[in-house]
Amino acid sequence: MGKSSLEDDMRYLLDRIEIQDVLARYAAGQDNHQDADRGVLIEWDQVFTSDAIVDFTQAGPGFGKFSYRDLAAVMRGEGNSPGLMNGAFQKWQHMLGLPLVSIDGDSATSRIDLLATHVGRTNANTPWHLFDACIFRDELVRTEHGWRIKYRRLEVNYVEVIETIQHKHTVQALIG
Amino acid sequence: MGKSSLEDDMRYLLDRIEIQDVLARYAAGQDNHQDADRGVLIEWDQVFTSDAIVDFTQAGPGFGKFSYRDLAAVMRGEGNSPGLMNGAFQKWQHMLGLPLVSIDGDSATSRIDLLATHVGRTNANTPWHLFDACIFRDELVRTEHGWRIKYRRLEVNYVEVIETIQHKHTVQALIG
Amino acid sequence: MGKSSLEDDMRYLLDRIEIQDVLARYAAGQDNHQDADRGVLIEWDQVFTSDAIVDFTQAGPGFGKFSYRDLAAVMRGEGNSPGLMNGAFQKWQHMLGLPLVSIDGDSATSRIDLLATHVGRTNANTPWHLFDACIFRDELVRTEHGWRIKYRRLEVNYVEVIETIQHKHTVQALIG
Repeated sequence: MGKSSLEDDMRYLLDRIEIQDVLARYAAGQDNHQDADRGVLIEWDQVFTSDAIVDFTQAGPGFGKFSYRDLAAVMRGEGNSPGLMNGAFQKWQHMLGLPLVSIDGDSATSRIDLLATHVGRTNANTPWHLFDACIFRDELVRTEHGWRIKYRRLEVNYVEVIETIQHKHTVQALIG
Repeated sequence: MGKSSLEDDMRYLLDRIEIQDVLARYAAGQDNHQDADRGVLIEWDQVFTSDAIVDFTQAGPGFGKFSYRDLAAVMRGEGNSPGLMNGAFQKWQHMLGLPLVSIDGDSATSRIDLLATHVGRTNANTPWHLFDACIFRDELVRTEHGWRIKYRRLEVNYVEVIETIQHKHTVQALIG
Repeated sequence: MGKSSLEDDMRYLLDRIEIQDVLARYAAGQDNHQDADRGVLIEWDQVFTSDAIVDFTQAGPGFGKFSYRDLAAVMRGEGNSPGLMNGAFQKWQHMLGLPLVSIDGDSATSRIDLLATHVGRTNANTPWHLFDACIFRDELVRTEHGWRIKYRRLEVNYVEVIETIQHKHTVQALIG
């Protein structure tokens, strides 16, 4: 293994971990801000390029192909308008699988699984649990601030709704 | 840190990320091909050695200890025979946790969590959601094409069936 | 890229993978030991410093801010006393997302998602499925035995209980 190869390998590994961190930061942005906390942009401004496009068309009516700031507004609300997540849900989690990443110089593509779960109440006041099984297909670019997503497409495998017995915040509440 | 140590460390890290990618590619193979799309071997031919054995005995009747191509046939069907996944399910997702990997030269062992979820309809036409919580225990080998799984054993923690309210493809359909 | 930089980068990457393995080993400790098997300390003794504190206050009554060995005792029982997990559940899985890690010399902080699922029966003998969506916020330290968690705080996003149709251990049992 030559010296330049060692440095190339190092660049590759640093790129891989940095790209993984960008993907993780998106999910952390969602989950560090629950309920009426709208602060997802604190993390997302470090995830996307300023002109990034996210195609969330498959998420249904209200979503589209727009900027990541539009996505934050649709999900979390803006000004006096509540977001879609605020109306129906109180809590959520965005679990990520293991990414497959292909790097070509200062560009990269990535594929990663997302299992997004949400709990809340329907209009009929039934407690519910929503499962979104999705794939993110991303294009990333190396910027002066590190790797950023410049294009993200959401593919929805399924959206599934489960009526729950109850929302409990401790195990003991059910078994006690 | 000596030069040879640096190169050994680099080899270790490259092996770790390559093995992680092999594990991720298995799940991508399942999830890139939904419904009647049987094309899992597009990814799996890059995951397993040609003579790899997968022990899926714990998955129940119909499964066994056989080649990964037999596994694909059982799950996805072959010729005019439908697979087990095609009959009962339309959509699925295979979420992976973080792997624990031990490398010894050109051999490695790995342990990783799998949460496989499936949605479909039972014979009585009830919508259902199946949760498979499993562990993959793998033996891998370095080949001329990179790391490959040569033996995979599926351990099933639990299989759980949930009756769902409805299959919806958008949140709005429920809360609207 | 200078020689010292290459060695610093290598140290960083090795630290990252080692910290990831510590996080993964916690989950493996839970899931390698199901039902009445109490042996979680086999893995956890390699996860925590001997004086580590875990703050599981948000998990509800019975939990607290104590040593990781106290946590094992509360969950799995000790002597003739059953643990909380033994009473209500038979099987479980602890899925991890992707960690965000910040390293400063011999100290590090980490944030990672946990989706813990459990299946069992309530006191009324109803089969149930519990979803715990959590975040682990950890402080780690480099020791002579490698990285260890010295402080872990559990943040609970939600705990959700779902009544299941039945516990089945094969898909065929339901669709057959």
